[in-house]
Amino acid sequence: MGALALVTVPDITWLPALAAAGEGVPRLVLQLAIILLAAKLGGELFERWLKQPAVLGELAGGMLVGPYALGSFPLPGVGPLFPPPAATGTIPVPETIYFLAQFASVILLFASGLETDFRGFMRFGLTASIVAVGGVVLPFVAGAMSAALAGLAPSVFDARALILGALLTATSVGITARILSDIGKLDTPEGVTILTAAVIDDVLGILVLAVVLAVESGAGGGSLAELALTGGRALGVWIVLTGLLIVLGGVVSRALGWFRSAGAALATALALAAFSAFVAQSAGLALIIGAYSAGLALSRTRARELLAPQIRPVYEALVPIFFVVMGMLVDFRATGPLLGFGLLLSLVALLTKLVGCGLPALALGFRPLGALRIGVGMAPRGEVALIVAGLALTTGLIGTDLFGVAVLVTLVTTVAPPVLLVPIFQRGGSGLRRVPVTPPLVESGLGLTLPGDLFRVFLPRLLQALESEGFRLALQLTTPSGEDVYELQREGEVISLRSSAQDHEVRVVIEATLPDWQALVAAALQRAARAAASEIEEGTRRLVAALGQSSTPLSPEAAQGR
Amino acid sequence: MGALALVTVPDITWLPALAAAGEGVPRLVLQLAIILLAAKLGGELFERWLKQPAVLGELAGGMLVGPYALGSFPLPGVGPLFPPPAATGTIPVPETIYFLAQFASVILLFASGLETDFRGFMRFGLTASIVAVGGVVLPFVAGAMSAALAGLAPSVFDARALILGALLTATSVGITARILSDIGKLDTPEGVTILTAAVIDDVLGILVLAVVLAVESGAGGGSLAELALTGGRALGVWIVLTGLLIVLGGVVSRALGWFRSAGAALATALALAAFSAFVAQSAGLALIIGAYSAGLALSRTRARELLAPQIRPVYEALVPIFFVVMGMLVDFRATGPLLGFGLLLSLVALLTKLVGCGLPALALGFRPLGALRIGVGMAPRGEVALIVAGLALTTGLIGTDLFGVAVLVTLVTTVAPPVLLVPIFQRGGSGLRRVPVTPPLVESGLGLTLPGDLFRVFLPRLLQALESEGFRLALQLTTPSGEDVYELQREGEVISLRSSAQDHEVRVVIEATLPDWQALVAAALQRAARAAASEIEEGTRRLVAALGQSSTPLSPEAAQGR
Repeated sequence: MGALALVTVPDITWLPALAAAGEGVPRLVLQLAIILLAAKLGGELFERWLKQPAVLGELAGGMLVGPYALGSFPLPGVGPLFPPPAATGTIPVPETIYFLAQFASVILLFASGLETDFRGFMRFGLTASIVAVGGVVLPFVAGAMSAALAGLAPSVFDARALILGALLTATSVGITARILSDIGKLDTPEGVTILTAAVIDDVLGILVLAVVLAVESGAGGGSLAELALTGGRALGVWIVLTGLLIVLGGVVSRALGWFRSAGAALATALALAAFSAFVAQSAGLALIIGAYSAGLALSRTRARELLAPQIRPVYEALVPIFFVVMGMLVDFRATGPLLGFGLLLSLVALLTKLVGCGLPALALGFRPLGALRIGVGMAPRGEVALIVAGLALTTGLIGTDLFGVAVLVTLVTTVAPPVLLVPIFQRGGSGLRRVPVTPPLVESGLGLTLPGDLFRVFLPRLLQALESEGFRLALQLTTPSGEDVYELQREGEVISLRSSAQDHEVRVVIEATLPDWQALVAAALQRAARAAASEIEEGTRRLVAALGQSSTPLSPEAAQGR
Repeated sequence: MGALALVTVPDITWLPALAAAGEGVPRLVLQLAIILLAAKLGGELFERWLKQPAVLGELAGGMLVGPYALGSFPLPGVGPLFPPPAATGTIPVPETIYFLAQFASVILLFASGLETDFRGFMRFGLTASIVAVGGVVLPFVAGAMSAALAGLAPSVFDARALILGALLTATSVGITARILSDIGKLDTPEGVTILTAAVIDDVLGILVLAVVLAVESGAGGGSLAELALTGGRALGVWIVLTGLLIVLGGVVSRALGWFRSAGAALATALALAAFSAFVAQSAGLALIIGAYSAGLALSRTRARELLAPQIRPVYEALVPIFFVVMGMLVDFRATGPLLGFGLLLSLVALLTKLVGCGLPALALGFRPLGALRIGVGMAPRGEVALIVAGLALTTGLIGTDLFGVAVLVTLVTTVAPPVLLVPIFQRGGSGLRRVPVTPPLVESGLGLTLPGDLFRVFLPRLLQALESEGFRLALQLTTPSGEDVYELQREGEVISLRSSAQDHEVRVVIEATLPDWQALVAAALQRAARAAASEIEEGTRRLVAALGQSSTPLSPEAAQGR
């Protein structure tokens, strides 16, 4: 006689609503509960025990509970929770759930745009741009050619071929950033190049998608000239939309700051993202392109700081729905015959990023080892590839067979590079050919754990203390894994701080290129501590004075010393 | 040639996806954008300029953009965004949006359950319980009788009559709490009684709804005996479900603490709420009853602290969707003929809470003025009334006419009491007949504004310092308006702290019943400041030692004094 028993024993006839529980809103609520559970259990399993990114666990969770696996088995009193589709080519999840997944992808891309930090371009900007271009063009061409050569599309200009090419373009840098952060290599020249290139790569990937969609909905299989013309128009529309949003960004940012009621800024920003997504789709682009542009436009404004902490819980609660639904769309039997092609395409995906990003790096001052590091680091594909595949599946451009191939490519390109990354980053020293102008960061940094509340008091004051020593904040970014990176520079010298919060504690890692950095940082730390303590003392003094009492100085020793 | 122009000029024929933009996912995305905007602009307008709760602004926003007002006007290239329903009795918003609203109400009730603080029962618990019961029974009976007398239902035992009764039961204490907090009366005996009674009132309201739904789906128009039997069963199911969840609460709380991946605890808790909602619905109760029970079960566990800050942004982004959608369901023309009845029912709603809550208060030690304060403070209705009305509309139990009446009752009972509250609370002194055992809090408390980061360092250490003076934390609650209230007691003496965060600052108000409280609080403040400063010093010392440097004490004076 448990809560579960009430569901599994349908003959309790005096429970009148039981018959209706298998349909409508209650059914959707149950489906959503299962999807959320699959997302978080899968994510946790992969992250904790398989040391893989959570997103793969969410995909796997979706495959497991989806219509082509457990979802098709009938539950007592409810029936199959996710029955396989009656007709091929239809989406095998309820429209409502599918819309939620789509809206989650809008939030995902808006947040990606919002997190883009163009200040990172200041260092390694040119190198990173060329690395990014190489890593988009080569996989795109190779992907389209693979489809044509395998007989899956009549020509490389066919929409099916172009979509397969587009699938291979966008790097998902989250896994690389996480691994480099774990082994303390995020601030190496290779690490910064990868992070910066990934930003440009995102924009390029979005553009490639815009072009492909324009070609697809236009003439169909066309020529290079036609592709260029249609692509040019899509590019034009994107530039106008993004330009407008960037111009409006300042106004929107001020408007968001104007709201006083709780959560209004976030909800309004989401409305802007949704509206921009709609405009992009209306203009022949895609929802996510508009959402990304809206995020990009706000990333350079003050609204970013306001929105970033608020959007995180919404993101974490909703975005996994997208990945579980993508996993649910994988039809194992349909994909089976294309397994060989899928593995081959995965290899093409890995090699084209390796060469497409590695060669420019080699030409621009990196040693072969450094170029290899960059090529491997740029290889993982992820969310954008899945979104493109989902889009193509919904519009009927590809079938469940090729969708399965896309998921396979995502899995392989995500699982393989991390295995290589740690050894190639931990041996062989600097990846640059000449000793860089900026000396490499010291090998052994300083790692410590502080209570979170004290850290938040500490950090701004430590940055201030270092700035009063002549350093300026050259780089501030949040990695996709949630680590905050601060880089301070002074005449070619670099001090980097990386902090990651866990529950109530914050782990801080400090590294620097100066020979005497320990003394400098120690002095700055003590100055920051004094500033924080005196602010606390001042606050206490004001409170105590307001109470009509006389205040004693902070430390009893000081009182005695006076 | 703006982003807007792309939508409003549909003859740009080379934009191929434009024709499709008015349907499917893009249309839903646009609708969602409009709903979010209506929610936040309406909420801000009402809160800032009309000094009314945001929820009324969200309702009004929904009425404005809904199918019975602006939503029916065609937009160029899109058509009417929310066309009026073709047939009466159908929900005039897309199924997907309606599901989102339903899920938002699940989140709303889960959060309400989670915020319930049973520790508040320790003071004024008995009084509050009796006040709550009076304030549920009288409105319920009067509401059902009004429906029967007005000829809207054949008897008071008819489902329509019972639903109208259920509508009037649940107090929405948010507005009262906000106003009392603004004028510093939240910690008066009346204020605490209202807050505590509202908690019990929520549970009773949920129970009444369970009983009514059981009667409705069972025999239909029945007798008192039948009602009691069916109601007893629903009550039994609710007790079993809630009891099970409470037993499982500890296990679930530990399980939620086990997750390490980002946002996993929140998403899993939402999955639990959704699952519990499904079980409740399957057992003949309602979705929100299950969600509330799940929140209630976790409110007594450590998971509450983990979830509370994470759920807030999700709540603020999604829950307004529910209120906008409720506003959109208001059919002005259908409600018109029942306007008189609606106003009368609003009066019944106000008077029955006044008498139902006021009389028990009068009998239990309050002066007439104190009883009036409690009666007026308990009068507002809100989210639960709207959820009940929405539920009744969807199941066809009431039509759009009576739904409009329900919204009218919500509006009137929310707008009217605040006008009275301030004057009756600010004059006439204590509302208790005898000087209370617990002396009233000092009239002039201490209010100060602190930087948010310092406050978060301060608060736990201040509570600790007071606890080491023999005080214990007797009451800790977060009011619906987001204010944190801490009440410390020592042998009948009370110190209360109320903090409300705004952007980066926290406003703290300290009040106490002790004659010499200023000296005591000042000492505790200074001890807290010293604890914070020495933790900062210790953290710095560890950091500096790890850097291989020697540390100097925090204050230079102290160094000289040694």
